[in-house]
Amino acid sequence: MKIDRDAPIGVFDSGVGGLTVAREIMRNLPSEKIVYFGDTARVPYGSKSKDTVIRYSRQIIHFLEEQQVKAIVIACNTASAFALDAVKDELDIPVLGVIEAGAKVAAKETRNKRVGVIGTLGTVGSGIHEAYLKQLDPEITVIGKACPLFVPLVEEGWLHDPVTTEIVSRYLQELKDKEIDTLILGCTHYPLIRSTIREVMGEGVRLVNPAYETALQLKALLAEMDISSSGTGEEDFPYRFYVSDLADEFKDFANSILPYDVSMAKKIDIEKY
Amino acid sequence: MKIDRDAPIGVFDSGVGGLTVAREIMRNLPSEKIVYFGDTARVPYGSKSKDTVIRYSRQIIHFLEEQQVKAIVIACNTASAFALDAVKDELDIPVLGVIEAGAKVAAKETRNKRVGVIGTLGTVGSGIHEAYLKQLDPEITVIGKACPLFVPLVEEGWLHDPVTTEIVSRYLQELKDKEIDTLILGCTHYPLIRSTIREVMGEGVRLVNPAYETALQLKALLAEMDISSSGTGEEDFPYRFYVSDLADEFKDFANSILPYDVSMAKKIDIEKY
Repeated sequence: MKIDRDAPIGVFDSGVGGLTVAREIMRNLPSEKIVYFGDTARVPYGSKSKDTVIRYSRQIIHFLEEQQVKAIVIACNTASAFALDAVKDELDIPVLGVIEAGAKVAAKETRNKRVGVIGTLGTVGSGIHEAYLKQLDPEITVIGKACPLFVPLVEEGWLHDPVTTEIVSRYLQELKDKEIDTLILGCTHYPLIRSTIREVMGEGVRLVNPAYETALQLKALLAEMDISSSGTGEEDFPYRFYVSDLADEFKDFANSILPYDVSMAKKIDIEKY
Repeated sequence: MKIDRDAPIGVFDSGVGGLTVAREIMRNLPSEKIVYFGDTARVPYGSKSKDTVIRYSRQIIHFLEEQQVKAIVIACNTASAFALDAVKDELDIPVLGVIEAGAKVAAKETRNKRVGVIGTLGTVGSGIHEAYLKQLDPEITVIGKACPLFVPLVEEGWLHDPVTTEIVSRYLQELKDKEIDTLILGCTHYPLIRSTIREVMGEGVRLVNPAYETALQLKALLAEMDISSSGTGEEDFPYRFYVSDLADEFKDFANSILPYDVSMAKKIDIEKY
């Protein structure tokens, strides 16, 4: 199959969080077009079973294929954990997950081989980061910690707040006690409270933001496959946004974190795919 | 249609929260059987649109009808807000919602006609409590406040915790400033942090627990229709639990709040209904 270099990148997430990944792609690959899908009707994936998340991911991938994307980024950590391996071989185009990208950098950066991972119950419970990290370096010890209050804190906008600092301190104390030197922000919302996490963990701990690392990995992969955008497109706004519910609320959140005015988010019936 | 008095009561919720309603029915109507459905695959409903919640509710009601229930209790506030009126006329059996029950008691109890309502974004945004309360007494002023962090705090089990007290104080300050004398706990999880809410609001404010009021209203309705259980059943465990996902996790939560050992929670595919 010949891949069209000027086709868009498909990015999907269980909701709005994956916009932090889309944002890094916009910043680091400015000539690429993006089709983003947020599964706002069925968010969150973090508390759902593996079978359910795989089924949802397949539906979204069918939708993105219909949009003729040239590559797919699974921006949702839970979906990366549960569905990436299952869907990879079913597709003719490359698929990247945020978990792989974060794990690669963490394995390279850690000095004492003690890596922390924070995320939702689903992501941390899956042990997927540990599996990737151990494959890269069997000597690495992985300490996971689920932080279910972080997403609602971010969605409330309490990004710089004593309550957030207290909750972050409480969740992360165990990781400090276990003397990790590298911490993977294993949920798309967490980069938005990165400064509080930095403050609590101290300067000695390397924070890995998989959104940023995924954008860099995507850039390298497109170059390697020789399918980077030719950049000759003349679109005013090369980004399209789709959701399964509540398109207006999505637009508000998108406008609060993206450096662009998101004028349109279209609602589709994902259960038809 | 002749209703079988020894048929079970159907109770449904978007997830585990409705178990607080089931618990009040068990306590106050001990000879009634219950079929509970928790839509754990699609939780939470609070951030979904009205159309989506109505569609989900209809699917669940079809499932409960197949279980031959004699009455249905919508234990989920969002589903009561969005779906009760839509489904009421489609059914031959009585349907009760937690919102109606709470509103009736609040309207009767308030002295200064200033009633507060706390709940999810969906419930509070729907304005449904206000609609019911104004119908009962047009002089009542309703002050709504969405508290999206309460559910994850309860699910973390931080029921008696300084962080919870701080967050409760922050959310409820506005209601105190507006001098409400009655507060409806408009989300099924909230009775589990009732003591913190009581501490923050003070003794002067009447807290209305719709779970309890719904059980009393159901009892009165069954008596009035002469379809109360004859109590001659000889079942060891007259309660059945169904979920759309993660049956084991559901069982754990159920066992933590119910005074019974929930040995079985069966997973069904609700999207087939």
